[in-house]
Amino acid sequence: MKIYLLGSMDAASLQDWQKHLQAEMPEEQVLTTLAPEQNAEIDVAVVANPTPGALRELPSLRLIQSLWAGVDRLVADESLPIGVPVCRMVDPHMNVAMAETGQWAVLALHRGFFRYARQQAQACWQPLTQRRADEVRVLVLGWGEMGRTLGMRLKGMGYRVAAWRMGTRRDTASGAHGVTLHEGPLALRCALAEADVLINLLPLTPITRGLLNAKCFDALPRGAAVVNLARGAHLVEADLLAALDSGHLSHAVLDVFATEPLPADHPFWRRPDITVLPHAAAQTDPRSAAAVVAANVRALRAGEPLQHVVDVARGY
Amino acid sequence: MKIYLLGSMDAASLQDWQKHLQAEMPEEQVLTTLAPEQNAEIDVAVVANPTPGALRELPSLRLIQSLWAGVDRLVADESLPIGVPVCRMVDPHMNVAMAETGQWAVLALHRGFFRYARQQAQACWQPLTQRRADEVRVLVLGWGEMGRTLGMRLKGMGYRVAAWRMGTRRDTASGAHGVTLHEGPLALRCALAEADVLINLLPLTPITRGLLNAKCFDALPRGAAVVNLARGAHLVEADLLAALDSGHLSHAVLDVFATEPLPADHPFWRRPDITVLPHAAAQTDPRSAAAVVAANVRALRAGEPLQHVVDVARGY
Repeated sequence: MKIYLLGSMDAASLQDWQKHLQAEMPEEQVLTTLAPEQNAEIDVAVVANPTPGALRELPSLRLIQSLWAGVDRLVADESLPIGVPVCRMVDPHMNVAMAETGQWAVLALHRGFFRYARQQAQACWQPLTQRRADEVRVLVLGWGEMGRTLGMRLKGMGYRVAAWRMGTRRDTASGAHGVTLHEGPLALRCALAEADVLINLLPLTPITRGLLNAKCFDALPRGAAVVNLARGAHLVEADLLAALDSGHLSHAVLDVFATEPLPADHPFWRRPDITVLPHAAAQTDPRSAAAVVAANVRALRAGEPLQHVVDVARGY
Repeated sequence: MKIYLLGSMDAASLQDWQKHLQAEMPEEQVLTTLAPEQNAEIDVAVVANPTPGALRELPSLRLIQSLWAGVDRLVADESLPIGVPVCRMVDPHMNVAMAETGQWAVLALHRGFFRYARQQAQACWQPLTQRRADEVRVLVLGWGEMGRTLGMRLKGMGYRVAAWRMGTRRDTASGAHGVTLHEGPLALRCALAEADVLINLLPLTPITRGLLNAKCFDALPRGAAVVNLARGAHLVEADLLAALDSGHLSHAVLDVFATEPLPADHPFWRRPDITVLPHAAAQTDPRSAAAVVAANVRALRAGEPLQHVVDVARGY
C-alpha cells in the first residue's frame, strides 16, 4: 500500500516520522511528497494537523490515521472525505507522558511548589502548611485512556480522585478502582463543588467547547486550581483571568491556548498565578506511535477491525 | 510518666504538638514548661532541635525522642546525657511527603518544567524534546525508609532507579525490586557516572558531610541535575555554583542550606538554575507523628524494645 505522511511539522520531524513508519512497515511505501499523478495511488493518509482540504485530493483513501490524540481540527475540516475511517492516535507512551504532566501539576499545586517559586523570586523563606495527599481532591474531566492513566496514578499516590465524563445516557455517579465517576451534564456541578484541582483532558467537541468558563469556576470551591491539558478552546480566557483576579481560583496550569504559539504580548505569560507550557504535556513519540499506525495499516490490509476509529459526528 | 516537649518552634506549633501528644497518651503528662524543681521528674524528652545543653538539666531521663528524622544536631550536642537512648522520628506519612517532593523534582527535571518556567519569564514558546521515563536514570543517595519510599515510587513511574548507601562491610552492587543498590565508598563513583538526576537523602554524619562536592559533580555525566533534600552541610555551595556556571550541571533543587533561613542576599535565590525550597520537602506532621512518639513511650513503660534508636557514634 502507499502511505502519505502529511501535516504541519518541520522537515526534520517529517523525516523522523517517515523513518520510523517505514521501519515498522518495510512492506509498505511511506511518502512525504507527492506528484499530482500519484494522488490516486494513496491508500492511507497519516496526518498531523493537515491543511484543510489537503485530503480531498486523495480519491482512493481507505484510512486517515491521525498522529495526534486530539482530532478536533481534523473532523472540523468540511472537505474530509466521507466514508473514509478516521483513527485517533492512542499510544500508551503518550498516555503516560500526559499522566506525568498531570502528576507534576497536582504535586506542585498540592505541595506549594508554584508558590515557593514565587517566593524565591522575592527571596522569601516561608514554609507552607503541609497537606497529605488524601486531603487533596482531584477531578479529572474526561475518562478516556489518558484520563484513566492519570487518575489511576494519582489514586496510587493517595489523592482523592474523581472523574467526570459527558456520558451518553444517564446523569449518575459510579466508581471504579476507588475513583468516583460522574456522568452527564447535570452531574458536573456536583463534581466541581468537590474539586481542589480540576484537570481537563476532554476531547474538544461542540459540546465541550468553552466548558472551562465562569460558571464552571464558580462551581469550584474557593482556592481551587485549574489545569488545562486538552485544547485551548475549552477555556474562556477572560473568565479564567477574572476568577484568578478575584482570588476565587488560586492558580492555573495551561498547556494549550486559543492561539498557539501563545503570542508574546499575551497576559498569561506574565502572571505568576498562571504556569504556561508550550503545548508539551504529551507529544506523540515516533518511536512508539509508528507501531500504532502500523497496526492499523496491517488491520486494513487484512480486512480486520481498525483501532480507535473516530465517531466524526460526535467529534472524537 | 512525665514527658517534656521542647525545641525550636513557635508557641502555636508547641501547643499543637502538645495537644496531639496528649491525645495519643492520655495516661501521661505532657509538659511544655518546667519549673526547675520538676527537672528530676521528667522521664521522656520529646525534642525538635533543642538548645544544646538543655537536656543536661534532666537527670532522670530514660528516652530522648526526636520529632525530626535528621538527628545530626542532636547527636552533636556534647552535653547529650550518656546512656539515654535517642530515637529518630520515622513516620510513614513523612516518608511519603519526602517521596512526593522527590517525585515532583524528578518529573520537573525529566519533562523540562523548570526550563519551561524560565522560558515563560521570557515569553518564549519552545517545546523541548520529550524523553520517556525509562530514559532517565535517577540515583538516590541513602537507602533508609525515605530513600526506599521514593525509590519504589520512581520505579513505579518507569524511571531507571539506582541507590547508594555508605554500607559497612563491602563495596558492591546488589538489586532489589528492580533498583540497583550500590554500597560503600568505592562504589559511589560508578553510581554517579550513571545518574542523570542525583537525589540526596543521606543522614548527615562526619563521613557524609560535604559529600556533594566538586569531585562528586565531576563524576556525574554532563547535564546532570542535583536534588538535595537532606542537610545543607552535605553540599559544598561554592562547588555547586562552579558546576552550574561551567554548564556541567544543568539544575539544582535545594531544600536545605548551610544557613537557614537562607539569607536574603544569598546568590542561590537569584539563579534560574537553582530551585530554592524553604526546608519544606517533608515536615513532621503532629497528626501522624504523635502516634509514633506514643508507641515508643508505651514501649518504654512496658520494658519493650524502642523503635528507631540512634547509634550515636554512627550519627543516625
